[in-house]
Amino acid sequence: MSQELRAVEWTGTGLALIDQTALPHRTVSVEVHDVDTLVDAIRRLVVRGAPAIGAAGAYGVAIALLQGAREGWTPAGTREAVARVREARPTAVNLMVCVDRVMTRFDEGLDAVLAEAAAVQREDVEANRAMGASGADWLLKRVGADRPLRILTHCNTGALATAGWGTALGVVRELHARGRLEVVYADETRPLLQGSRLTAWELLQEGIEHFVQADGAAAGTILRGEVDAAVVGADRIAANGDTANKVGTVGIALACAYAGIPFLVAAPTTTVDLATPDGSAIHIELRGEDEILEWAGTRTAPAASRGHNPAFDVTPGSLVTGLVTERGVLEVSAGELPADHLR
Amino acid sequence: MSQELRAVEWTGTGLALIDQTALPHRTVSVEVHDVDTLVDAIRRLVVRGAPAIGAAGAYGVAIALLQGAREGWTPAGTREAVARVREARPTAVNLMVCVDRVMTRFDEGLDAVLAEAAAVQREDVEANRAMGASGADWLLKRVGADRPLRILTHCNTGALATAGWGTALGVVRELHARGRLEVVYADETRPLLQGSRLTAWELLQEGIEHFVQADGAAAGTILRGEVDAAVVGADRIAANGDTANKVGTVGIALACAYAGIPFLVAAPTTTVDLATPDGSAIHIELRGEDEILEWAGTRTAPAASRGHNPAFDVTPGSLVTGLVTERGVLEVSAGELPADHLR
Repeated sequence: MSQELRAVEWTGTGLALIDQTALPHRTVSVEVHDVDTLVDAIRRLVVRGAPAIGAAGAYGVAIALLQGAREGWTPAGTREAVARVREARPTAVNLMVCVDRVMTRFDEGLDAVLAEAAAVQREDVEANRAMGASGADWLLKRVGADRPLRILTHCNTGALATAGWGTALGVVRELHARGRLEVVYADETRPLLQGSRLTAWELLQEGIEHFVQADGAAAGTILRGEVDAAVVGADRIAANGDTANKVGTVGIALACAYAGIPFLVAAPTTTVDLATPDGSAIHIELRGEDEILEWAGTRTAPAASRGHNPAFDVTPGSLVTGLVTERGVLEVSAGELPADHLR
Repeated sequence: MSQELRAVEWTGTGLALIDQTALPHRTVSVEVHDVDTLVDAIRRLVVRGAPAIGAAGAYGVAIALLQGAREGWTPAGTREAVARVREARPTAVNLMVCVDRVMTRFDEGLDAVLAEAAAVQREDVEANRAMGASGADWLLKRVGADRPLRILTHCNTGALATAGWGTALGVVRELHARGRLEVVYADETRPLLQGSRLTAWELLQEGIEHFVQADGAAAGTILRGEVDAAVVGADRIAANGDTANKVGTVGIALACAYAGIPFLVAAPTTTVDLATPDGSAIHIELRGEDEILEWAGTRTAPAASRGHNPAFDVTPGSLVTGLVTERGVLEVSAGELPADHLR
């Protein structure tokens, strides 16, 4: 993949998003010029991944300003529109953090807002590069094997999920760049198949050998000794290291703990929310039942069945062997808590 | 559901199978009169579930005899055809056990073979009823709550998966019959959605409240305290209690252990293979990659991606709180091993 791939890009007049619902078969760009379209794009997962949503939200302030100017909104009306962007998805903290950061320059006008949003995006890519290096160093030392590693990952945490490069997939890319990656097991990630559609697509662009597997296969693959470490992203990390991530993550963490292999969470410090004391305070988004009961618009379950569709789960910090941010690795399960080290 | 539902039924001249690949939207019966069609039906999961495959294999001996008579096979040729049925799926032990049992009467001719196959089927239903009662007793005592239970299950283990009634789902049906069942969380069970298509369909027939969820949601649902116990079936149980079951099962067992709730395996003694010392000796069937990479014939993953598709995983006996057979409950994780109690 070109390192220039941008899931979120400011065009000068609006926000260009790669429509991630159309991948891997079609690469379609959607240009966003108004707040309703942006909120819809975030909700429908046209743009997804906590850091990518954060970047989109940052530029969302500029979109609200431009739309407000066109349509004669009051500053209060524009702030209200920004608030709707900020709340478009409830679990990922990056969206709120990035919107709030850009809003500190709201009164300075469009140029200042755009400069701040660009800084958000640039810093995310820099953070990803730093995480990739630290995470790869830590994994190679921790696994201690003198051979390329076999890595399991879940959902999509690559360039598509971030402002560029990737969090967990950034660590994977770094291992690959160093010639220390054997294979990636990519969980397909039901219900929306971000692993099968997006991670596999990104891995192919990089020429990285990979197998797509059912989410239910992850624990067995780990227990059979076919994996050296799991690396995942995060949507919100509490002060005690409890980590909300795509549904299915905590089962991987349990399997890693049982097998005695590292479970590494890769996320920028913008994903760490010290105001959230622990996982019980994280609101878990329940998405529509049809994502579970249907497939591409065709019902698979019986018509009268109900679905249960939590989009995320919470991994206890005690199961997080490593948390890599742009500031290095915290060994959370060994007692290095975000609350003590990321103030 | 009528208690008369039979996934496998001898018609007098052949074997009628409910085509489980067509459910829940169409109920189609397939009649089998030759060995090739039976082997294909087992491989394609027209008939699936370890005890149902066992019953189909038992009648398969009769099919081979009838086809041999029509086509002038030697006894050796007929035995060879039976051997192909016996090997149609490698992980479930019931198929081999049931075929071998019926083959003890091979030399007595068709009537004796049919009588033995009918006994296999009748005894499986009786075993399921006994398991249902013992399993429900044990769960209610073990959970100790004076309210209806919230049960999580995986794959399909009901009347469709057995000669009738069900193993794990038989326990669920018994709880429901006693008014002690609140709700069932049915994992959809990728890749072939036996939970979403078959378990949900059976639960609807019974009027049992249920939610279909992604397999990845199971661990989080358990850790959030939304489940009182998990009940699953088995395809092969080793002498030490290690249990092969549908891929995704071991992750549920790990979550139950972490949450401190019971993990109950329900299977007839025909599923216990004392000749297998532990799980490492169980051959795990790897199925075709397309089951993971496609959906209803449409590719979802990138064209160049590879799939990894183990159909089963092995849960260590140390994670099996209870194993209910028709002979009662063994508390395997507490040291009651099949090797010591099911000779």
